[in-house]
Amino acid sequence: MSEPLFGKVALIGIGLIGSSIAINLRDRGLAGSVAISTRTAPTLARAEDLRLGTSYHLDPAEAVRDADLVILSVPVGACGPIAEQIGPALKPGAVVSDVGSVKASVIAAMRPHLPDHVQFVPAHPVAGTEQSGPDAGFLELFENRWTILTPVEGASEEAVARLAALWRACGARVETMTAEHHDLVLAIVSHVPHLIAYNIVGTAADLEEVTKAEVIKFSASGFRDFTRIAASDPTMWRDIFLNNRDAVLEMLARFSEDLASLQRAIRWGDGDALFDLFTRTRAIRRGIVEAGQDTAQPDFGRSPKGH
Amino acid sequence: MSEPLFGKVALIGIGLIGSSIAINLRDRGLAGSVAISTRTAPTLARAEDLRLGTSYHLDPAEAVRDADLVILSVPVGACGPIAEQIGPALKPGAVVSDVGSVKASVIAAMRPHLPDHVQFVPAHPVAGTEQSGPDAGFLELFENRWTILTPVEGASEEAVARLAALWRACGARVETMTAEHHDLVLAIVSHVPHLIAYNIVGTAADLEEVTKAEVIKFSASGFRDFTRIAASDPTMWRDIFLNNRDAVLEMLARFSEDLASLQRAIRWGDGDALFDLFTRTRAIRRGIVEAGQDTAQPDFGRSPKGH
Repeated sequence: MSEPLFGKVALIGIGLIGSSIAINLRDRGLAGSVAISTRTAPTLARAEDLRLGTSYHLDPAEAVRDADLVILSVPVGACGPIAEQIGPALKPGAVVSDVGSVKASVIAAMRPHLPDHVQFVPAHPVAGTEQSGPDAGFLELFENRWTILTPVEGASEEAVARLAALWRACGARVETMTAEHHDLVLAIVSHVPHLIAYNIVGTAADLEEVTKAEVIKFSASGFRDFTRIAASDPTMWRDIFLNNRDAVLEMLARFSEDLASLQRAIRWGDGDALFDLFTRTRAIRRGIVEAGQDTAQPDFGRSPKGH
Repeated sequence: MSEPLFGKVALIGIGLIGSSIAINLRDRGLAGSVAISTRTAPTLARAEDLRLGTSYHLDPAEAVRDADLVILSVPVGACGPIAEQIGPALKPGAVVSDVGSVKASVIAAMRPHLPDHVQFVPAHPVAGTEQSGPDAGFLELFENRWTILTPVEGASEEAVARLAALWRACGARVETMTAEHHDLVLAIVSHVPHLIAYNIVGTAADLEEVTKAEVIKFSASGFRDFTRIAASDPTMWRDIFLNNRDAVLEMLARFSEDLASLQRAIRWGDGDALFDLFTRTRAIRRGIVEAGQDTAQPDFGRSPKGH
């Protein structure tokens, strides 16, 4: 094991991302000690059962005392109130970060509560599964995935470099961009895809002509991929849409415009327009597989052939 | 090996589905002989290299001569013309079937060309991957998946039972319904999901503010699931949308209506409406996993944890 990158780390929130960070800190020896704080006693007890940290606290202000690094892994709507709670307890020079899927609104919500003597480096590990809670975490979650840092004005280069080093030590690749650009990129690669997945699963559930039993039986024809995404944590996703409203609405407007044009092509039997789009979209898939961001195995490797 | 269910089987078209049927016939000993026909010489040669049949023909009429069962596994738009070609060569009493993802229009296109002395039992194995061509087939493709039969008036019960037995021998479960109901069910569980997957990948590719490189790098946040579906065979899917127009447009209208209401909830900050939908959709996922129609492993088992 290498020397710890940080002395004391405080993890606020211990869901899929928080527990995966905790496992990385523990198994790779990246921190001297790890204080864990979460909102409810049963979850905190579960984190202790799983030996995710070295101390356990219901009060986040207590967890962050003397911490060199504090990471909030909570729904983005909870970031502001937690920053307010922990602000006065933060150690001078501490690095404060988060893992939220939206950056501009999280920065706006947290920044007023953070003292000038801390280094605020917001981050977003672009990784996840549809599972949630402290049992969902695993060591390899960040492996070969990108973590985006959106440092705010005034953060020292050294603080950004130390946080980047931590993420790299967790297996991640690191990219830096503005919070505004981050929010636009994530709107199209994550937020709108989740929204339309939730939406079509809802549409299917509400039909009268087709029963839920039929939807379930014949889901292997495409639908089941959407249900996986639409099984993601409801609180987390509600907060994402409320907090990245403008970028999501902009990307959604483009999606709907394009869909209306496809609808027209179907209505008028324009096979060439359909064929052209269906050919063009294959190139993006190839790029993703070549970049190591997805498996090349048919059906994600889940079909019997892949087992 | 059990006794062959059919003497001679002719497979017209040898893509993902055709080659998977061929492998099942061969490896499970379900047919006395297997004649394969496909449109191009290189594909036919490849089928022979892969030992998918016992005879190989560019002319489908030659392949079906003396066949007890004929299965068309071609894009649905090609079914009518092929029925016209093979009609006069079909043996009296032969069972004629297909595997098309749309049933009413395929029946309308094929039926006029089939002689009265054959048994027409259209079928649709609800299974697939995003791969295509004779190399894509595998034995387990139909395992535990549903095959839907939509027998036309006049087909004998015995013919339906024999075809059902063949599909069960390939590992499939068999369901019977009308062609019209089939097309409605598939519109919501398959056709509209494919359409919106193609659509969002197209929207992402056309953006100016977000580069293709960024879309690829950060695709693990949800988008990559859609790209898999949007890498499916363009000809097959063009034909599906052109041939299941009414059902697709109806389901698409409901999808768009629901999406507009979600859009409104985001614009006006109605977190409860979002949370309610996001909670409701989890139940459908549970149903699919419990019915054995998808894996319960996080991220389809493709994340490092699943390997």
